[in-house]
Amino acid sequence: MTQDKKVRVRKRRQRIVREQDRQAANSIRPGISGGKFRPLQDPDLPKIHQAVLHILSRTGLSDAPETVVDTITRSGGKLDDDGRLTFPAALVEDAISGFRRGFTLHGQEPGHEMVLSGTRVHMGSGGASPSILDMETGRYRRSTLKDLYDAARLVDSLENIHFYSRPMVAGDMPDEYTLDINTAYACLSGTAKHVCVSAGNGEHARRIIKMCRIIAAAADMPADHSFLSFNINHVTPPLRFVPDAIEVMEQAALHGIPVHANVFGQIGASSPVRLAASVAQSMAESLAGGIYAWLTSPRAKVIFGPKPMITDLRTGGMSGGGGEQAVAMAAAIQLTRYYDLPNVSIAGATDSKTTDAQSGYEKCLTVSLAAQAGSNLITQAAGTQASLMGTGLESYVIDNDMLGSIMSSLKPVKVTDDSLSLENIDQVVRGSGHFLGEQDTFARMKSDYFYPQVADRTPLPEWESSGRPDLNHVAGARAREMLSRHYPRHINGKLDAEIRRRFDIRLTRNDMGHI
Amino acid sequence: MTQDKKVRVRKRRQRIVREQDRQAANSIRPGISGGKFRPLQDPDLPKIHQAVLHILSRTGLSDAPETVVDTITRSGGKLDDDGRLTFPAALVEDAISGFRRGFTLHGQEPGHEMVLSGTRVHMGSGGASPSILDMETGRYRRSTLKDLYDAARLVDSLENIHFYSRPMVAGDMPDEYTLDINTAYACLSGTAKHVCVSAGNGEHARRIIKMCRIIAAAADMPADHSFLSFNINHVTPPLRFVPDAIEVMEQAALHGIPVHANVFGQIGASSPVRLAASVAQSMAESLAGGIYAWLTSPRAKVIFGPKPMITDLRTGGMSGGGGEQAVAMAAAIQLTRYYDLPNVSIAGATDSKTTDAQSGYEKCLTVSLAAQAGSNLITQAAGTQASLMGTGLESYVIDNDMLGSIMSSLKPVKVTDDSLSLENIDQVVRGSGHFLGEQDTFARMKSDYFYPQVADRTPLPEWESSGRPDLNHVAGARAREMLSRHYPRHINGKLDAEIRRRFDIRLTRNDMGHI
Repeated sequence: MTQDKKVRVRKRRQRIVREQDRQAANSIRPGISGGKFRPLQDPDLPKIHQAVLHILSRTGLSDAPETVVDTITRSGGKLDDDGRLTFPAALVEDAISGFRRGFTLHGQEPGHEMVLSGTRVHMGSGGASPSILDMETGRYRRSTLKDLYDAARLVDSLENIHFYSRPMVAGDMPDEYTLDINTAYACLSGTAKHVCVSAGNGEHARRIIKMCRIIAAAADMPADHSFLSFNINHVTPPLRFVPDAIEVMEQAALHGIPVHANVFGQIGASSPVRLAASVAQSMAESLAGGIYAWLTSPRAKVIFGPKPMITDLRTGGMSGGGGEQAVAMAAAIQLTRYYDLPNVSIAGATDSKTTDAQSGYEKCLTVSLAAQAGSNLITQAAGTQASLMGTGLESYVIDNDMLGSIMSSLKPVKVTDDSLSLENIDQVVRGSGHFLGEQDTFARMKSDYFYPQVADRTPLPEWESSGRPDLNHVAGARAREMLSRHYPRHINGKLDAEIRRRFDIRLTRNDMGHI
Repeated sequence: MTQDKKVRVRKRRQRIVREQDRQAANSIRPGISGGKFRPLQDPDLPKIHQAVLHILSRTGLSDAPETVVDTITRSGGKLDDDGRLTFPAALVEDAISGFRRGFTLHGQEPGHEMVLSGTRVHMGSGGASPSILDMETGRYRRSTLKDLYDAARLVDSLENIHFYSRPMVAGDMPDEYTLDINTAYACLSGTAKHVCVSAGNGEHARRIIKMCRIIAAAADMPADHSFLSFNINHVTPPLRFVPDAIEVMEQAALHGIPVHANVFGQIGASSPVRLAASVAQSMAESLAGGIYAWLTSPRAKVIFGPKPMITDLRTGGMSGGGGEQAVAMAAAIQLTRYYDLPNVSIAGATDSKTTDAQSGYEKCLTVSLAAQAGSNLITQAAGTQASLMGTGLESYVIDNDMLGSIMSSLKPVKVTDDSLSLENIDQVVRGSGHFLGEQDTFARMKSDYFYPQVADRTPLPEWESSGRPDLNHVAGARAREMLSRHYPRHINGKLDAEIRRRFDIRLTRNDMGHI
């Protein structure tokens, strides 16, 4: 890279940081800490840990690929008579001590860093829905690659959605390889925020990593700059390895790409009906993958995702919006916090098909308890509908406001001599009788408070005289307006052309706003 | 009461208890404990307590009625040169030790008991909205006495709304006395659950207490059976007594009627902009009333309601649905819990005018954090819209499901050898590979899980083929259906006639479903 180009890149970055600082004035700081909601009692945590050790060391996992068997048995593991791979407790304990902590997920531009430590909270999209609620027809239809790119562009603009985890399956791709490559590129070109995608196997992962290397080189990013992570389900509960996903985990470990070790244990189906047992099994399953990644490379960046999921017995389907789901997920988060491990959770998986009150309260209950429990990454926190089967573009706009409110509920209440304002109270009651004129008031109402973008706070008469605006229409209009103008150009024309030369990119230049 | 009548009453009660047990199979136990969300750090609580003592002992309250000045100065208080009544720290400490705790609020029938101890949580309606969202026209109009009665009937049927706090002002009453008496009777005749009403002054309170005595005598209730409580604002912040409300507090204390010592401190207007200071001021204000009630009678049943409220600086109006509101209220609850005092909170005060996603998430965020913080009584948890300016009957039906979910998120995660199911996991993974067939599963999915009444959990294709039902329509139909058939008759015709002889009752027999 020439000196000139370096200066240009630096100046561009400085400009972006200034703009982001300006926007941040009215946004809640990503990475604010949760952890004030603790559904499990402290003495319960070592008990669950003992159960995790028992499950890994006695029950073990089936279907372990040869590489996993070799790696784990070299470290003291055993393959039992049923072909189950067990992990000795000492290995599990060593791995828990040794896992990387506190690493940073980046975006492609500065200002999108997410430090995965403590109870720092970040909100994102997520899912693999096969359909989208079409904004024009109001009906669900098969989702496409362009939808994936458009949703990325929306997330790029919405300040309280901090990362973009692939929310939809591009149903118009001809095969799994083309799907994986194009999903990665639609996400990476649609937003400069951190992106999470899946990969069908190790080879697909290698190709996506190659694409990332090309992007990183063009922007002169440091080697450790992780702007993409792999979102994998390396275990099918109960306790069965998924060989293809293990390949992806291996690639991620070898190349220093962060990897989400996700396990979705359906409570009462693929995991026990008792919450504590489901949490223990899910944690054991998540750790099993993490241990393999850590033995592959001690520098592996594993994000632990034990995700117990509720089943509605009446339909047999997932039911992600209820109180049981909220508390199960929060308990799993608390367990990862007990281990002080980077964690990822799922919340916001409403069963509602539209952006109605049910959607609002189901998303809010699960997301707010995940946030208060201190989840580092909350996926599905925005945009998801219909028990993860659909995505709504208006939903992102509505949910962005909700996430701002939830983030603002994480703000600590400062209790100091100053914040207790005793002299001030005395002066006010003996003087003007109200605090509106106090110098603190105006400044703090601007700096300390979150104001929503589309949620309505007008007084009732004003709302009526302005024609009783409907939130869904307002959000739809906002989404259309954003999509009509916001085409991120962090991947410039030259880089886009280079990627198109090397990969079979199906997103057209027209889709990307080039006329 | 004759022996025969006593037997009839007892048999009726037994029948009711059986019916309620049956219903309870699918409801979340009222009074389940919260307290797992703690927004304040433990060392902050004594600091806030010191601030409370400082405010009461140094700054004091203005506009104290003569009876209050006499009572407090007899116990060491002083009237300072500005006419402010101060409370010595020792008196405040003695009162905090001496206040009644753990008393029970009853309904008019068994099964509606609410024990106000620890972090036990109960959900209710509330407010004083001047308008209602008319179910037929979809427009807001002035609310009436009949609306108040109809809302009571709905709450009577909805299992996750545990008490009925007067939500609307009956705008068709000619004067304040007629309003107070008729509000009490519309509430008491519309539901057998515990009722909370206000009273304009001591005389109105005395008349309402008389009405309660007549009802209690007819049903042969014990003297201590508090099925009505007074909801008063005895202080206008900052730190000014309201003499009429103090009269009500006095009557309540003398007659053993529970009284909510509420203070709504608008943050940045009538209380400081710093949350900690606003919480301290509100607690001091609530305690000031409680201390007077306690000195009036040490058996007084005071429920403490320090309610810091957020103002939206852009409109100057209350803004009750955001994250700052949720955390401010939860902090105030935590402070009352530090004192181990019975508490009442406000949550659910959405700014949305309709039952949309904003309404859902704003209600859920504030109610769920109040519940997790362990509020004994959460008012406004159902039915409120438009920044407390409107009530919606459909809203009760929708919110009832939300409250069920929130209550279910309070359920403790049991961590025992049994609940960790280690043997069971081992057997399943070496056997069938799934937990659906396990004997625990079906039983627990029925007993441990909450299933909503109107929220939609059908799979997407089924939802589409059934014509994409709209939650608001479904809830409206449910509300109309309930209202068409459910006329509670815990106040029978004879008692109704007696009350009509003694009071100017404006609710017609026709309104009450007598043809």
